[in-house]
Amino acid sequence: MTRSLILNAFLMTTGHHESSWRLPESDTGAGTDIRHYQRLAQLAEQAKFDAVFFADSPVLQAPPAQRPAGALDPVTLLAALATATEKIGLIATASTSYNEPYNLARKFASLDAISNGRSGWNVVTTAGDAAARNFSRNAQPDSSQRYARAEEFLKVTERLWDSWEDDARVGDKDSGVWAAPTRIHRIDHQGEHFQVAGPLNVPRSPQGRPVIIQAGASEAGKGFAARWAEAIFTAHQSLASAQDFYRELKARAAEVGRNSQEVKILPGIVPILGSTQTEAQRLADELDALILPQYALQNLAQVLHVDPAELDLDRVLPQGLGQLVPAEKSTSRRDLVLGLGYERNLTVRQIIRELGPGRGHQTLVGTPEQAADHIEQWFTQGAADGFNIMAPVLPSGLEYFVEHVVPILRQRGLFREDYEDSTLRGHYGLPVPRNHFARERAHQEQVA
Amino acid sequence: MTRSLILNAFLMTTGHHESSWRLPESDTGAGTDIRHYQRLAQLAEQAKFDAVFFADSPVLQAPPAQRPAGALDPVTLLAALATATEKIGLIATASTSYNEPYNLARKFASLDAISNGRSGWNVVTTAGDAAARNFSRNAQPDSSQRYARAEEFLKVTERLWDSWEDDARVGDKDSGVWAAPTRIHRIDHQGEHFQVAGPLNVPRSPQGRPVIIQAGASEAGKGFAARWAEAIFTAHQSLASAQDFYRELKARAAEVGRNSQEVKILPGIVPILGSTQTEAQRLADELDALILPQYALQNLAQVLHVDPAELDLDRVLPQGLGQLVPAEKSTSRRDLVLGLGYERNLTVRQIIRELGPGRGHQTLVGTPEQAADHIEQWFTQGAADGFNIMAPVLPSGLEYFVEHVVPILRQRGLFREDYEDSTLRGHYGLPVPRNHFARERAHQEQVA
Repeated sequence: MTRSLILNAFLMTTGHHESSWRLPESDTGAGTDIRHYQRLAQLAEQAKFDAVFFADSPVLQAPPAQRPAGALDPVTLLAALATATEKIGLIATASTSYNEPYNLARKFASLDAISNGRSGWNVVTTAGDAAARNFSRNAQPDSSQRYARAEEFLKVTERLWDSWEDDARVGDKDSGVWAAPTRIHRIDHQGEHFQVAGPLNVPRSPQGRPVIIQAGASEAGKGFAARWAEAIFTAHQSLASAQDFYRELKARAAEVGRNSQEVKILPGIVPILGSTQTEAQRLADELDALILPQYALQNLAQVLHVDPAELDLDRVLPQGLGQLVPAEKSTSRRDLVLGLGYERNLTVRQIIRELGPGRGHQTLVGTPEQAADHIEQWFTQGAADGFNIMAPVLPSGLEYFVEHVVPILRQRGLFREDYEDSTLRGHYGLPVPRNHFARERAHQEQVA
Repeated sequence: MTRSLILNAFLMTTGHHESSWRLPESDTGAGTDIRHYQRLAQLAEQAKFDAVFFADSPVLQAPPAQRPAGALDPVTLLAALATATEKIGLIATASTSYNEPYNLARKFASLDAISNGRSGWNVVTTAGDAAARNFSRNAQPDSSQRYARAEEFLKVTERLWDSWEDDARVGDKDSGVWAAPTRIHRIDHQGEHFQVAGPLNVPRSPQGRPVIIQAGASEAGKGFAARWAEAIFTAHQSLASAQDFYRELKARAAEVGRNSQEVKILPGIVPILGSTQTEAQRLADELDALILPQYALQNLAQVLHVDPAELDLDRVLPQGLGQLVPAEKSTSRRDLVLGLGYERNLTVRQIIRELGPGRGHQTLVGTPEQAADHIEQWFTQGAADGFNIMAPVLPSGLEYFVEHVVPILRQRGLFREDYEDSTLRGHYGLPVPRNHFARERAHQEQVA
């Protein structure tokens, strides 16, 4: 079996470039317009993408003034997209810190039932005090607490998803037996963070369980991913960095006894494309010219965890920012910015430009051929099993990618001509997991 | 303006009769089949019903063996139905005891955005220890605690839904101002049960806020309904009982300063219909004959909070059950059963038969004319502003009602010929609520 490239369309209102909403073509109300997202999902499905994906955080990112803000609850949104599509996977981000396992397991199980086995859950622990303050906390739990809860959350969720065996529903009208009680199980979880009796009130998914995805880049995040993730979203600016990460995570998964081929590594890329390099650069320049420098500076200050007043657009970074790491803040983007500032000696304005729209992800400015080359190189040289395609402008950036890059990937034999399966697991080449309870019961019956 | 009858289609897998799934026509997997629910929602919309409605509890009702069990998360399900319909309202039950206000406000706001203002929330506090055990509790909070939390939950939710003013999104591409920060508000709620900073990360709904519905029949439930509910779901077996309830709730709403016309009273009815009384009775008998008596006895024992061994199908109820009321159990259905047993001296088997499929709601066995007469009488004699139609078998029971009863209601000028609005508030004749924050701001500007 040949290895098949994975492509997800990572969707975000009018696109991943912060200025995309200011282009004449963009709809400033796109974020709450279901037709906008239906169009995008159908476009991605026509191109045989593996999945559409939504990031998420249960908080209004401040300041909301200069960029489309707010977002529909992604599982609710994906349920509406499920009926507008037939095959494409549907991946939503959701937080283990600010949900109850029973509710979240049920939401994803419901999406999986509605979509016939196409759902995926991007597990996040949600860094930041702002989100915590929407959930009766003054500050976020520290990282180790968040990951300890996430670990137990996943155990509970997996058991709940397995609490109905696949053959639990008998549906025998003559005898009046709708379900076999011996095939529906309480989970009776008693843990440090949760006590959950179960069973779940939704039957098992057509794909066994929703696909588990994770994107944490911290040490704790990587350990969690190695244990749980079936796909890992990641951000890299260079082939070497991506290869290191790829090797490390595959090795760590193998160390905990998993098949490393069942852990898909998927970096994000922001393709800013044109038929020539000049044309692509013109679009990049047009978007960059629409950035409000003071707004970008504020965002940069957030990443660095400093007061915006400490930064000047036309000066280099003040010294000593590396020491100002408040405990429990996310540091991977901050380290990227410090690298640009201290190692390459760029001004704040230059850093903003250099960072590009990808928030740590690779931005490609070039032709479809160049984008395909990049994808092929990373895919064949041990840096990626596929990509999150982060169009800078939506829908036009995704349309362009579908029309011009996907055909090249097909010509090169890298990407599917048509779907061979109808579940997200099937698209990703992941096996349907065995049901814990069915396995235990089979084992007991064998012993008896 | 003439008063307009409200009709909701209360949907439940293969129907409200516990034996409906055993009929040859029924699909035993209907509960997780999105096409089944799409068909039902479209059918109700073609008939210009006000809304479809799903009951819910975050627990697998035991025993699951003898009847379709499990249910998709109703907001997720309704999101999928939103895109298969255009006008009909979408009402989901959700619990204030086992959700966080930020998450739930967001789910309903998302459904409201996706459906263009058609969502309603049936607020429940979720009685029962079984549900509590899915949420890290050994037992349910007592009723007064549950209602105190619900009260605060509603306050928070309403503020979150108002946290964006209607004109918050400016979308000025030239200046780069996407939203006016002065029109997006933190709520800074500091209460006994919740501390929620806000703002919500979803803009205000096209209908202002989702419609609030409530169905508690206890004293605490009625008080809550009088303060918060814009529609009240209720169960009555007689015109007099329904009239008493109608008068009481309208009066209590007026007492707390509300316009009693903005509180819609909606009893449930189970129409078992045929072109003649004999034909209708034949369907009722067919369904009743499929009831498994021992299973019905178990359910009755649950209602009475007694051991099933204490009941005998062919004997009257043992004496003294009225004293056996565990604190904090729901008692309205129990009282109904005790009335049948002690006042009318029926055997357990007769009680089961007499209760019918409606679980306390009125069952009508008869012709379309008789059903229309009943509806007209209750509607015109101060017992109802409309009804939850609980078809005993789905889809056929709803099809029959739509085809044979709705035309009679139209001939009598009771029910709409077509939608005049496209939001649930519009269908129900409820005003769009003023935004708290906009009102406060307008007031301050006036004072200044």
